[in-house]
Amino acid sequence: MEKRTINPPFFCVNPKAYLYGEEALKLAKTADALAEKYSIDIFFTVQYADAFRIAQETKHLIITVQHMDNLNVGPGMGYILPEGLVAAGVQATFLNHAEHPVGVNDLVKIMKRAEELGILVIACADSIAEAQAIATLAPDVMVCEPTELIGTGKTSDASYMKQTNEAVKSVSPNTLVLQAAGISSAQDVRLAIESGADGTGGTSGIVCAVDPEQTLMEMVETVAAVHSEQREQRK
Amino acid sequence: MEKRTINPPFFCVNPKAYLYGEEALKLAKTADALAEKYSIDIFFTVQYADAFRIAQETKHLIITVQHMDNLNVGPGMGYILPEGLVAAGVQATFLNHAEHPVGVNDLVKIMKRAEELGILVIACADSIAEAQAIATLAPDVMVCEPTELIGTGKTSDASYMKQTNEAVKSVSPNTLVLQAAGISSAQDVRLAIESGADGTGGTSGIVCAVDPEQTLMEMVETVAAVHSEQREQRK
Amino acid sequence: MEKRTINPPFFCVNPKAYLYGEEALKLAKTADALAEKYSIDIFFTVQYADAFRIAQETKHLIITVQHMDNLNVGPGMGYILPEGLVAAGVQATFLNHAEHPVGVNDLVKIMKRAEELGILVIACADSIAEAQAIATLAPDVMVCEPTELIGTGKTSDASYMKQTNEAVKSVSPNTLVLQAAGISSAQDVRLAIESGADGTGGTSGIVCAVDPEQTLMEMVETVAAVHSEQREQRK
Amino acid sequence: MEKRTINPPFFCVNPKAYLYGEEALKLAKTADALAEKYSIDIFFTVQYADAFRIAQETKHLIITVQHMDNLNVGPGMGYILPEGLVAAGVQATFLNHAEHPVGVNDLVKIMKRAEELGILVIACADSIAEAQAIATLAPDVMVCEPTELIGTGKTSDASYMKQTNEAVKSVSPNTLVLQAAGISSAQDVRLAIESGADGTGGTSGIVCAVDPEQTLMEMVETVAAVHSEQREQRK
Repeated sequence: MEKRTINPPFFCVNPKAYLYGEEALKLAKTADALAEKYSIDIFFTVQYADAFRIAQETKHLIITVQHMDNLNVGPGMGYILPEGLVAAGVQATFLNHAEHPVGVNDLVKIMKRAEELGILVIACADSIAEAQAIATLAPDVMVCEPTELIGTGKTSDASYMKQTNEAVKSVSPNTLVLQAAGISSAQDVRLAIESGADGTGGTSGIVCAVDPEQTLMEMVETVAAVHSEQREQRK
Repeated sequence: MEKRTINPPFFCVNPKAYLYGEEALKLAKTADALAEKYSIDIFFTVQYADAFRIAQETKHLIITVQHMDNLNVGPGMGYILPEGLVAAGVQATFLNHAEHPVGVNDLVKIMKRAEELGILVIACADSIAEAQAIATLAPDVMVCEPTELIGTGKTSDASYMKQTNEAVKSVSPNTLVLQAAGISSAQDVRLAIESGADGTGGTSGIVCAVDPEQTLMEMVETVAAVHSEQREQRK
Repeated sequence: MEKRTINPPFFCVNPKAYLYGEEALKLAKTADALAEKYSIDIFFTVQYADAFRIAQETKHLIITVQHMDNLNVGPGMGYILPEGLVAAGVQATFLNHAEHPVGVNDLVKIMKRAEELGILVIACADSIAEAQAIATLAPDVMVCEPTELIGTGKTSDASYMKQTNEAVKSVSPNTLVLQAAGISSAQDVRLAIESGADGTGGTSGIVCAVDPEQTLMEMVETVAAVHSEQREQRK
Repeated sequence: MEKRTINPPFFCVNPKAYLYGEEALKLAKTADALAEKYSIDIFFTVQYADAFRIAQETKHLIITVQHMDNLNVGPGMGYILPEGLVAAGVQATFLNHAEHPVGVNDLVKIMKRAEELGILVIACADSIAEAQAIATLAPDVMVCEPTELIGTGKTSDASYMKQTNEAVKSVSPNTLVLQAAGISSAQDVRLAIESGADGTGGTSGIVCAVDPEQTLMEMVETVAAVHSEQREQRK
């Protein structure tokens, strides 16, 4: 599989384990329509069991799992086989999220497997030191978010965002930076991208919103709007 | 979801990570046809990402995952949400396989979640002491196999099988016993059931056979044949 | 090594990682003097690195570690070798504490190693189901404490204590039951033993007390006092 | 505690779990005498339970543990408290050995704790990619050894050693490189140091030798001899 190219600013909808089955599919379809309408690359994370179905029923989303294992075809009971993900339509995986930490050695091996299979890697770090260590492995995307902000509705402040962007890019210039901590409004989305993030996104800020579909729509619109403004400025 | 009732002798096809996608689906369809033809309950284990698809394209199989996590709807990144499995058509899960050991405390909690959701539990143990400890939790099915035999093509000998059957039933009379270590021929299947197993099955004995479909067919036929013979004898 | 015999009511001082080095040694010496004065069996848990020193400088304590690994003499980097513990004077180990959960399979194996080496096992469970599963392995002592009470200063209520005592003894009559959740005063100690516990003890209730030495003294005195009263009543 | 300065070429005796108690102490005393005689810095790894005793009975060794945990003074049952190690005389720790892998996030945090407490860190990697990721964290010493060579008695070949030395130094110039894979003779020791290693050492090559004390003596002598030769050449 050839690895998909990501065009920033991108967006990431990460429902974690908040949504599954029909509800996940419904939000995915909304995200899919938005990806098409605004020509924005949208990562959409799924429960493994929903991957095939959501991949079948959407066209533009980057179907993303929340972890995958260092496993080869063969024995290995109950782990996540990368080849099986690809066969189901998965194109990207998160790795080393604070809620699913990965060993250094495993991370190297899983990223090698992802490379072989054309799976995009979104690697997470929760300190600048950790971000720089992982950046040496040149993941496609890095998430730099202080663990203590996850799920609080408080964005990383602008200076932290700038600092982490630079820390990652200085080690791995081609790695895109996703700033997704505490994003719960279109305004947070704007701030993240204006602070230099290549992408942004959310979990509870979307799925726990009064109207998740509407919130998602406003966020993706904002990504597109900031993108236009930035292009204008560059002229 | 109401938990499905299992009628022994049952069979279990456990492709672990040997098969996925199209190949897994193909073997599943064969197993499905055999389940119907012989009226045998067949557990068929899948990669999580194949669960929905295989559930959609088969009618008789008990779609089974190889592990699931102690996770509730909400945060939790990259773990296996039981509710998501049910939504995808999963009806059973293995737990505590030697290749995926589970903490005592987690096992208790995951089994509670399975109970709430009507998911059948196939719990594994690799010693009699471990089997008896787990039997107190009354899993639907227990697998008692000495770790050292897994994947060797050598069946547990008859006396070990009898001993483990009794060990489990003495603690939990309603738990069915699956003897699946080293099953690689119809003859092994016969021996296991005649030794008192409620069910049997295989992994490498099937998926690594010269002709997996044929091997599976012969094995399930044998389950049905032994079943008939046993009914005759009871008359 | 022959396994030491425990005479209830016993006491357990479990400083976890609150104390180490000189401070741990000081409290251990106090406990040692109390064990002698009142002829009470006292388990005293240590950092591994303090085991030898505290064993050398005390005479009556049961030197106890807070976990040990399923490791044999040979390779294995950074794990806790049971033989090394025995050589340092350790006589008992906690296993499967809520803060250090152990796999079912590992628990069986570690308990086997403990048996071979004459190390007493204090196994923990945080629900009645888990306690009964573990009781089938016949640990020397079981701790039954609802996770949510650990460190709160709220004792398990009397009915919960009675229920867990019975649950354990019904499976393994010779296993002693330690009720140690939320013990922070001599009164809590009295209640636990009067509720049928074979032993009691504490962590934060002792080490975070205004005067840990004094608190420990009062608690052990109470164990001795209740013991005397119970002997009187039996006459 | 001030972190000890290491002067290359240094040596590392890593008995893993092969030795404990009296036997570990005996080899430690031999190593201690050699460290003094040849003025060579020798890391000597211990079972945690032996740390205090060996620290008390030796003068020159760098008492080293094989792992330590990300734990602070307080609760935390059965883990390795860094402060407790320091109190027992420990001056260094291995981290992330192939037999004890550590999460990326944990590694960052444990190394921060080591820094605070003046504990030297010997970090392990089993591929060049992993070595470079970890080198960004500037450990005091790095071990670069292909997992498949550990315990085989086959040295990493010279080109691999040169490659890993350069990979580490290019990221972290002050990190010393320990080449210790498959060292089982004085000749292997010579080759490793001549290939540019800052230090070398062994496990099974020493403890499983016919005469461990003699083997250790020859190895340390060789370290000293190569050191002299190198100083001569630089004149």
